[in-house]
Amino acid sequence: MHEPIAEAAILKIERGRRTHARDALAVEEPCEIRLGGEAVAVTMRTPGHDAELAAGFLFSEGIVVAGDIAAIAHCPDPDALHPENVVEVRLAPDRQPRRDWRRHFFATSSCGICGKASIDAIDVGAPPVADGPRLEAAALAAMMRQLQARQQVFAATGGLHAAAIFTAGGDLVALREDVGRHNAVDKALGYALLNDRMPLDRHALLVSGRTSFEILQKARVAGIPIVAGVSAASSLAVECAARGNMTLVGFLRGADMNVYAGAERIT
Amino acid sequence: MHEPIAEAAILKIERGRRTHARDALAVEEPCEIRLGGEAVAVTMRTPGHDAELAAGFLFSEGIVVAGDIAAIAHCPDPDALHPENVVEVRLAPDRQPRRDWRRHFFATSSCGICGKASIDAIDVGAPPVADGPRLEAAALAAMMRQLQARQQVFAATGGLHAAAIFTAGGDLVALREDVGRHNAVDKALGYALLNDRMPLDRHALLVSGRTSFEILQKARVAGIPIVAGVSAASSLAVECAARGNMTLVGFLRGADMNVYAGAERIT
Repeated sequence: MHEPIAEAAILKIERGRRTHARDALAVEEPCEIRLGGEAVAVTMRTPGHDAELAAGFLFSEGIVVAGDIAAIAHCPDPDALHPENVVEVRLAPDRQPRRDWRRHFFATSSCGICGKASIDAIDVGAPPVADGPRLEAAALAAMMRQLQARQQVFAATGGLHAAAIFTAGGDLVALREDVGRHNAVDKALGYALLNDRMPLDRHALLVSGRTSFEILQKARVAGIPIVAGVSAASSLAVECAARGNMTLVGFLRGADMNVYAGAERIT
Repeated sequence: MHEPIAEAAILKIERGRRTHARDALAVEEPCEIRLGGEAVAVTMRTPGHDAELAAGFLFSEGIVVAGDIAAIAHCPDPDALHPENVVEVRLAPDRQPRRDWRRHFFATSSCGICGKASIDAIDVGAPPVADGPRLEAAALAAMMRQLQARQQVFAATGGLHAAAIFTAGGDLVALREDVGRHNAVDKALGYALLNDRMPLDRHALLVSGRTSFEILQKARVAGIPIVAGVSAASSLAVECAARGNMTLVGFLRGADMNVYAGAERIT
């Protein structure tokens, strides 16, 4: 299944009336991301932009940097039943993974978290972002309007998260949708990586929902100074933003917003 | 940090006016779940009900069943800086894990997904649920009203998902909130497991947001015949429900709803 939207026959109950109807569903399928033939992770994603998803995931987890990737392709095995759900990434011959991902994804039994500050244990170790541009509150609001107007699959299904990268001047670089909000961010970052746009140090990342630690960390790896979401921010997202010299905006609705960190960038 | 809510100083921008304010944040912290001293998974969760989270996670992943667990405690290491973010589960002396979790969480390089139907590869192998009770649409709507009225942390922060288990008669068994929707489900299931309520074959699971494959699979492992959410269902959630003889309801708002699978249970 390669499409982001599927149709289903449903029973609709409205004001007590039962009718048979068709409904559009956001497609969710597993995707295995491989690096040099080894499985790194399986993520539940909406099909589409799979190469960007794989590239953005490996980049935002600190495993690859710009220029490392030589090729990305779906599983070439002719006997595979679902080759479209496996993405193989190959590095250039002179490149190695930047980080031992086995240690990260495959936690060991040593006391890794309670032995030190927990946020450090899950940190991929990206440096704080540069000061970068300032943005008018109205410009940020205009970006969110643009994101919401362009959420095509969400409009059809009500079932997808969106993430978009804008330049400080308000130009859309990439907008991606996915059932997983981290995947939407990875796809947008993957687009930027594969199109030589890194670092995104004069850009903003906007997301359609809540902002969590992982979203802030992904943005930080890409050097993005400003992150804004429609809904709430978590405590660890705020902490990550403050430590990373980032601006974090939540509840961005119309012209109103809450600025949780880095308020000096919002003019 | 043990509290589910944290306070933060924010800049509030409303209709162009900038004011300094305090805001309540949903707390997000990593939690490492260990079984017999070995790390099984790290999840980003809201502190609270950690024993239930660990029990529900291990149960819903097919690793333990009722009666297997002898003890659950936070990390006892006196030198640990964040012992509250590590939960140790010990099995009874005569019990073993029901499933090799290393194989599941630590994917290997063999062609596990594209070699067979992808949904099978991520399936924990729970049997279909029993036919169980039927429910009036109005009774399901009343459960959702009760869930929404009791979302305490969400009311304060706007930042949490909720999951609640109800008996077919409409009695609330457990309601849990978390920044991760899967965690909220695991906490509610963990409560039921630790209080000898499994299987939940005459119960419904209600969630405050979207329903994904993982939520349906967790419900199926617990034998829950009816799952309902406020928002959209994914394609794989519908497929999992149909294969598992489950009823799946989405967009449950007021008395209106979409029934994606198992409509015969909604009367």
